[in-house]
Amino acid sequence: MPAPVLSRRDLDFLLYDWLDVVSLTDRPYFAEHSRETFDGILDLSADLATKHFATHNKKADANEPRIGEDGRVEIIPEVREALDQFAKAGLISASFDESLGGMQLPVSVLRAAMAWFQAANAGTSSYPFLTVGNANVIATHGTEEQVSTFVPSLLEGRFFGTMCLSEPQAGSSLADITTKAIPQDDGTYRLTGTKMWISGGDHELTENIVHLVLAKIPGGPAGVKGISLFIVPKFLVDADGTLGERNDVALVGLNHKMGNRGTTNTLLNFGDGSFTPDGREGAVGYLLGEANKGLSYMFLLMNEARIGVGFLATSLGYAGYLQSVEYARTRTQGRPLADKDPSSPQVPLVEHADVRRMLLAQKAYVEGALALGLYCSKLVDEERSAADADARDRAGLLLDVLTPIAKSWPSQWCLEANSLAIQVHGGYGYTREFDVEQFYRDNRLNQIHEGTHGIQGLDLLGRKVIMRGGAGLALLGETIAATVAQARAAGGDIAEYAQQLEAAVVRVGTTTATLWAGRDPELALANSSVYLEAVGHVVVAWIWLEQLLAAGDREGAFFDGKRAAAQFFYRFELPKTGPQFDLLDSLDRTTLDISPDAF
Amino acid sequence: MPAPVLSRRDLDFLLYDWLDVVSLTDRPYFAEHSRETFDGILDLSADLATKHFATHNKKADANEPRIGEDGRVEIIPEVREALDQFAKAGLISASFDESLGGMQLPVSVLRAAMAWFQAANAGTSSYPFLTVGNANVIATHGTEEQVSTFVPSLLEGRFFGTMCLSEPQAGSSLADITTKAIPQDDGTYRLTGTKMWISGGDHELTENIVHLVLAKIPGGPAGVKGISLFIVPKFLVDADGTLGERNDVALVGLNHKMGNRGTTNTLLNFGDGSFTPDGREGAVGYLLGEANKGLSYMFLLMNEARIGVGFLATSLGYAGYLQSVEYARTRTQGRPLADKDPSSPQVPLVEHADVRRMLLAQKAYVEGALALGLYCSKLVDEERSAADADARDRAGLLLDVLTPIAKSWPSQWCLEANSLAIQVHGGYGYTREFDVEQFYRDNRLNQIHEGTHGIQGLDLLGRKVIMRGGAGLALLGETIAATVAQARAAGGDIAEYAQQLEAAVVRVGTTTATLWAGRDPELALANSSVYLEAVGHVVVAWIWLEQLLAAGDREGAFFDGKRAAAQFFYRFELPKTGPQFDLLDSLDRTTLDISPDAF
Repeated sequence: MPAPVLSRRDLDFLLYDWLDVVSLTDRPYFAEHSRETFDGILDLSADLATKHFATHNKKADANEPRIGEDGRVEIIPEVREALDQFAKAGLISASFDESLGGMQLPVSVLRAAMAWFQAANAGTSSYPFLTVGNANVIATHGTEEQVSTFVPSLLEGRFFGTMCLSEPQAGSSLADITTKAIPQDDGTYRLTGTKMWISGGDHELTENIVHLVLAKIPGGPAGVKGISLFIVPKFLVDADGTLGERNDVALVGLNHKMGNRGTTNTLLNFGDGSFTPDGREGAVGYLLGEANKGLSYMFLLMNEARIGVGFLATSLGYAGYLQSVEYARTRTQGRPLADKDPSSPQVPLVEHADVRRMLLAQKAYVEGALALGLYCSKLVDEERSAADADARDRAGLLLDVLTPIAKSWPSQWCLEANSLAIQVHGGYGYTREFDVEQFYRDNRLNQIHEGTHGIQGLDLLGRKVIMRGGAGLALLGETIAATVAQARAAGGDIAEYAQQLEAAVVRVGTTTATLWAGRDPELALANSSVYLEAVGHVVVAWIWLEQLLAAGDREGAFFDGKRAAAQFFYRFELPKTGPQFDLLDSLDRTTLDISPDAF
Repeated sequence: MPAPVLSRRDLDFLLYDWLDVVSLTDRPYFAEHSRETFDGILDLSADLATKHFATHNKKADANEPRIGEDGRVEIIPEVREALDQFAKAGLISASFDESLGGMQLPVSVLRAAMAWFQAANAGTSSYPFLTVGNANVIATHGTEEQVSTFVPSLLEGRFFGTMCLSEPQAGSSLADITTKAIPQDDGTYRLTGTKMWISGGDHELTENIVHLVLAKIPGGPAGVKGISLFIVPKFLVDADGTLGERNDVALVGLNHKMGNRGTTNTLLNFGDGSFTPDGREGAVGYLLGEANKGLSYMFLLMNEARIGVGFLATSLGYAGYLQSVEYARTRTQGRPLADKDPSSPQVPLVEHADVRRMLLAQKAYVEGALALGLYCSKLVDEERSAADADARDRAGLLLDVLTPIAKSWPSQWCLEANSLAIQVHGGYGYTREFDVEQFYRDNRLNQIHEGTHGIQGLDLLGRKVIMRGGAGLALLGETIAATVAQARAAGGDIAEYAQQLEAAVVRVGTTTATLWAGRDPELALANSSVYLEAVGHVVVAWIWLEQLLAAGDREGAFFDGKRAAAQFFYRFELPKTGPQFDLLDSLDRTTLDISPDAF
């Protein structure tokens, strides 16, 4: 019996005791729901993830997708079987409107449920998640016809979706994409260009693949202001929903990755003439929304995907944590330092302080990250369902500020958790006989895709904390201050942590002001990654204080664990931000001044 | 033309300008050598590593050793070809006495030369390195007959060597090994037991394999005090040096690892009856040195191997650094923050501050680690060749204190360098089309083997800094103080760094005293890994100051780079130790007090 990949006990605590997601059911949009329906989805997800996803995680890693002799992508059959189960359970459409066949499930509950699949099998779980995001963009910005043509098939899992942003010469720099979209007399467009790093870009898992493609309409503005968004299906879809001709989207190659091997990652050519039955030039595409506003539409998907990456990193970290706890409890090795008798029996690894340190660090990282992700997901629910416009706006603003952290912090620290999980296993953890080495390889992707770590730093310091006159940062400060006030009143250790947190929040404010005082973006942003990491630690410290308040003085091993992990975070982790703020306050120019020749 | 895997310019600076290894040639033992012979070895190594080792690094990773139908280990043929070249060049015996066919090359020069092979191909380079260590133990502790029977064949590369310590139930806890050695009437022993994690434990690369095996002679003391060391060859060797019968050492299985796949890593059975032509029971073994002193003999090899692991980690970090510099200089992406014109050409990655931060961090880690490793290797030379006994003793003492750091610091920070090398490459770095993902996987091993990170922490804080009444720590302090004094006199930035370093060294002393004030090992050692990491950073800060003093005020990109990397280390890295010392000074009990149930 392998260790579970996620803790239902923890999810219940976070969703029900802390975030009180059941209160959402008082709102009209979620009125059909209840604790019972939420539990049902969580139970179902744990069950499906365990029975159909975890079971082929290693096999999918060892047998990565390949291009067969017929040019089609071959994937082990377990992937399709698992995804069929997933779709049949209605999980792709769960958070969508009932009018689209969805369940109107709160995103916070859905994310918790999805984390089971991410923890069980990062590679296989990516396909439906991309599809959900894709369908959400079409449902939000598409015409009635576009919605009816594509969204139901996506939500049923008959079609899967992708997001096509990067090109070989344009990764982080989307301003430099060169894929062209030429308008046609019938209102459609013809696209030509090459897209790189397209996850789920080709496969035989579904009847059709719906690509959302960033491209430029000739004559439009230069740079990102001239980017439009197009729906480009692999097979054209007739008015009655049946599949028509093959569109000119050609698989050029698969990328062979260190981890996350179960998800095909592709180089695609649009309009290179591989599939042109009628001699047409270019792949047929349909403009989504208005021309030249493509990037803003894509950001709906990008922001969702960034939170999703945070959850993926968290889930992998969590699975590794639980496996290493299990291993540390059962594997015996060595003796307590005080025991000098070599004939006494060896003790479980968990008896050694250094092993506990490694377990506590993992716990502090993965439970902190999970709580942060669920908090952000609850903000999505608030933004969608809060009664008054101001509350919706505040939720959206806070989510904007937190998104780069919810993406980057788990990507960094839950990878570190996976490294510690390997370390707890010793040599065994470095072998493919155990799972943790795969988690570590899978997780390393998360600092790269959907905006690299560096891009998140620029987003946080260069946009999010200064937008709307700093309103987002101010709101974060107020929100944390409310927690601090509560924690002070609670007394004891919690009050001490509150004091530490308050001081750290002050530093976030003063450092941000110092960095921008000279209004010199180059200098302000020179160490934006350090800023991102420091603010991330402050935010997660706050999330831990929130968890402690929710735990109150309840007794039992679960709550003792929460208190120990919080203590670890406040003693071992939060103090790391001191030197980071000092460095930032010094307006250090080391990275700016070095000549490229000096490397 | 791929980027070089190591910088000869840096090696020259460190060996000649800083460590002045040519001065060793004034001593009788090294009198045959000169700058020219050293250069010759370095040139030869760079050439062989580039032509014969780097060329199959990826192939060996993709085609790991397997057990063929005949039960033999199959390894791609390039490995043997490369190792034949290595042996033919006399590199296995290079540091050995001339009487054994060696060159009496200083270890510092040899390590620099070997780093080329480690950087080019971690997997293939391990075989001769294990052989060197193995031969060194036999040459040091063996009888005349043992030496003449095994050492020449090892040094010629006709035999390869292993070290067999761990067992499935005894990894870090060597007190718990159960392999038994029964004395025979003819003075030999018969060994039975199972050994785990044996690198190079079986293969067809050489005619024979010489295992050095820890085992217990029944009736001896319990625990580590009853461990003896045995020579157990795969094939018995007749008096005239010809190979005799197959000894009863059986390959049970190969471990399948995340990285470092080129080195076979094996589970071996000794004396399980697989090979017993004459019906004898047990594998034939020859006691090395005295009974029950095996662990102390093995520590000669272990200490050498720990420095070697540090070099392996460093070399992999260095290779990744150079590749990411090359990539950052040639790959264009985005524009300077001040450039708002999207039609202007994209700039090389190296123009972005965050990319420079990632390159500078790598540079600070890998060049700091290389310098530390070479410094330690020079201490080996001093210990071996210094004229007066006191100087030899001091060198040995300082080496003892530095060994856990020379092993663990590169294993941690050069792995981080590899992660940053991936990050500089973006998505490409996560693919197997580039080398950096392999470096990262290969490097993750180094925190585990030859004593885990946690074991190094216990060694440093629990033994090395308190042994001989703290003489080792005092000597380290004096040595650093001498550098500080020189740096103060130099003025400018260097003097500022000296002040920072001096303050950090004071903290090492006070924290060590605080931790041991209660004479409670459990409490003192509760956070020994944190201590290891903090002291490691202080030591590397000192090593950087040493490099700056050696650079003086010389001009040019190389020296500018050294100054920038040192600046980075003093501004971004050394301050991280502040919170670590604070934590240690608080005698924190978080890791001790948590109940195992609370995870």
